[in-house]
Amino acid sequence: MSARHGHPATNGGGAMLRKEDLHGSTADPVLDTMTFLNEITIQYPDAISFAAGRPFAGFFDTESVFAGVRRYLRYAADHGTPPEDLPSLVYQYGPTAGTIREVIAASLAADEDIHVAPESIVVTVGCQEAMLLALRTLFADRNDVLLVSSPCYVGIMGAARLLDIPVRPVEERADGLSAVDLAAAIDAERAQGRRPRACYVIPDHANPSGTTMSMRARHALLEAAARHGILLLEDSPYRLVSAGERMPTLKSLDRTRQVVHLGSYAKTLFPGARVGFVIADQLVRDTGGTTTLLALELGKVKSMVTVNTSSLSQAAVAGMLLDADGMLSTANAQATSRYDQCRRTMLGRLDELMPPARATALGVSWNRPNGGFFLAMRVPFRTDNAALARSAERHGVIWTPMSYFHPGGGGEFTMRLAFSNLTTAQIEEGARRLVDFFTAEREASGDPGDHATPAPAAVAG
Amino acid sequence: MSARHGHPATNGGGAMLRKEDLHGSTADPVLDTMTFLNEITIQYPDAISFAAGRPFAGFFDTESVFAGVRRYLRYAADHGTPPEDLPSLVYQYGPTAGTIREVIAASLAADEDIHVAPESIVVTVGCQEAMLLALRTLFADRNDVLLVSSPCYVGIMGAARLLDIPVRPVEERADGLSAVDLAAAIDAERAQGRRPRACYVIPDHANPSGTTMSMRARHALLEAAARHGILLLEDSPYRLVSAGERMPTLKSLDRTRQVVHLGSYAKTLFPGARVGFVIADQLVRDTGGTTTLLALELGKVKSMVTVNTSSLSQAAVAGMLLDADGMLSTANAQATSRYDQCRRTMLGRLDELMPPARATALGVSWNRPNGGFFLAMRVPFRTDNAALARSAERHGVIWTPMSYFHPGGGGEFTMRLAFSNLTTAQIEEGARRLVDFFTAEREASGDPGDHATPAPAAVAG
Repeated sequence: MSARHGHPATNGGGAMLRKEDLHGSTADPVLDTMTFLNEITIQYPDAISFAAGRPFAGFFDTESVFAGVRRYLRYAADHGTPPEDLPSLVYQYGPTAGTIREVIAASLAADEDIHVAPESIVVTVGCQEAMLLALRTLFADRNDVLLVSSPCYVGIMGAARLLDIPVRPVEERADGLSAVDLAAAIDAERAQGRRPRACYVIPDHANPSGTTMSMRARHALLEAAARHGILLLEDSPYRLVSAGERMPTLKSLDRTRQVVHLGSYAKTLFPGARVGFVIADQLVRDTGGTTTLLALELGKVKSMVTVNTSSLSQAAVAGMLLDADGMLSTANAQATSRYDQCRRTMLGRLDELMPPARATALGVSWNRPNGGFFLAMRVPFRTDNAALARSAERHGVIWTPMSYFHPGGGGEFTMRLAFSNLTTAQIEEGARRLVDFFTAEREASGDPGDHATPAPAAVAG
Repeated sequence: MSARHGHPATNGGGAMLRKEDLHGSTADPVLDTMTFLNEITIQYPDAISFAAGRPFAGFFDTESVFAGVRRYLRYAADHGTPPEDLPSLVYQYGPTAGTIREVIAASLAADEDIHVAPESIVVTVGCQEAMLLALRTLFADRNDVLLVSSPCYVGIMGAARLLDIPVRPVEERADGLSAVDLAAAIDAERAQGRRPRACYVIPDHANPSGTTMSMRARHALLEAAARHGILLLEDSPYRLVSAGERMPTLKSLDRTRQVVHLGSYAKTLFPGARVGFVIADQLVRDTGGTTTLLALELGKVKSMVTVNTSSLSQAAVAGMLLDADGMLSTANAQATSRYDQCRRTMLGRLDELMPPARATALGVSWNRPNGGFFLAMRVPFRTDNAALARSAERHGVIWTPMSYFHPGGGGEFTMRLAFSNLTTAQIEEGARRLVDFFTAEREASGDPGDHATPAPAAVAG
């Protein structure tokens, strides 16, 4: 069409659009790699997949959702909602910031020792929308830079890309994001005239690396953020479904309102609700001296994204929280125990199949997460799409290339292994297949020292 | 903090943020006016409000939602989902584009004579997310301009503002958006080197004006869009809850894939589900010659906004659609009749209270929508926040200033009156109060010819 009209500003419109005319986020290479991963999964349905970090559905009963909704309506009635207004709590649009903020605030106090006013909370369509709201509100233009602990959850990279926000990765260490590295990155950005606004981090059992930050690292990070005047975007979806002692969240340690906490009920209640939240108790002062809560600004942005979170989903989530007496950790005891068993089976089986000498011979090493859904495994060959295709086709095992999670490059010899949604039998068999795959790669390379075996071009994705 | 660090790129971070450092969308004046309207509504709880265009909750039963979910699960079982996988249809994350696209496609064929493949549909978190996805996908940079029929639904303006997309209003005529005006706006934008990508329009019972486009205007608009190579973003939430003969949607008349249709179940099922959809059957060709559906690109963007629409809400909506045998128009007969009665009561009462001579003497006129939730009333005084405050305080009646809906200025002497969520008794009493208010304004002006009575400064919002 543009040729027909011959005007440089003509769009490709109507019957045939040009891909290059669309927004850059639709050409994000991560999307293509994810598509490749999905296709491999469909193509080899009998392969054991360590790719999907989904929660386990086996303890779920649909009727429990209806019970949750009814429970929330009883709570609302007990708290003064007239009987004739109760159906509207499910039927109608609700306030943009959410109807169930008090229930969430009570649950955060009970479970996480996080004490915030309900007004500091915005209920969101999952954690993804919480990220989008935080980024859109805090990042004014392309001069504002987002720092991310790298490797990094793809969701935050996507939200940044959608808004054309530049991202600077800060390489994660074995015990997570280092305050020293963060400070260096901030200085480097400022030296180039840019403004680092916030740093995204998953302190506990990170997706994708499985890393957990030490107490010392947490305090150092908070101190660095305060000193350099940036916010920390804390995301921590796996805490309440992980066994063992929990370290405090950054938010519960936060004395200077440095932390915007991003929350999710996808792992603790059910992902199908698509209910998350964001705590933004920072103060915002306008030029006239009027002060508001950052949460209020996030709510304005939310009114332009989804208007409000599903009233039905909010009612279900609130009812399920109330049923748990505000203690999600207790309510999830069964699921937590299952995830822990998966994790222990995974680590135990890898130890068994690859004792130190064997692991060294194969050139393979892995970390030992103390919770969560993931571990990271380093191998001596490129964990690219070609390797993934060989793994699926010849060995019946699927994993995620860690390079997908490195916004600035990296992870080319690492894979993410998710163990949350498999049976222990699948994990045991999957681990065996992985070791077969590693052995075959080693043999194919013909050179144990060659860490960059090129993949056959024909298989490359 | 930035003062302490003394670096120009330091952010205001942590304990106190500066409003001017946040994204411009949070300072949108429309947000403040909406806040003013909300405050007035809270301040005068006994006032009759023609402001909120909410659907009527009175026919709703919460248990019908549960029945809908169960119905959908039976449908899924009948269509091959193994029993053990049924809970996951509510519990799990679903495909980004949605799980219920086939049910939606069947319903669109039955209700709207719109025949599209399920793959052309993306299920969204209400129509708001559908708008955001369409804009983010189609608008690559600030050179791409969105045209809107003006006055205009605030949701599309918000989505554009969030993405820093420039908006050019095209003033609506009495029978809606004119193809001639659209063509002139396109030419003017191109003359300035910008690229008009799409035009947003509500062809039926528009929010806020109540206007419906004629058949001739629809055909002319489609023809103009094709000729000039722009897309039409068609939004039409009130059609299936409006009585009388329906004109065809732009999408059902679309022979050149010029129309991206934005859909909502907020008025036909229930707003608390937050389920909408977008039909994007346009083809997109990349530089390598590979062709995909525009819906696929929208889905990529959705993965960065909300990941997927609540599985619970989708199941409820699909079940309710199935229960209606795909005929929402029939399922909504009772609600439609009620809305129609409201509309007729409103128009009838206004006619009664302001026969032609009286209306002329008051300097008041209004349009006669044939459906929907709104009408537009023109008055001889400024319909600003100060007038709204006088109306609420002295006459117990609330309305929406039409200027809120004019992105380029305009509507300063018009109000939007919504009648969807009031009883006929409230409408009758509200109309009486409106006429009292008009009469008082007329008397206060002391000059029937003065159409711009300045408001007392003390009352200004």
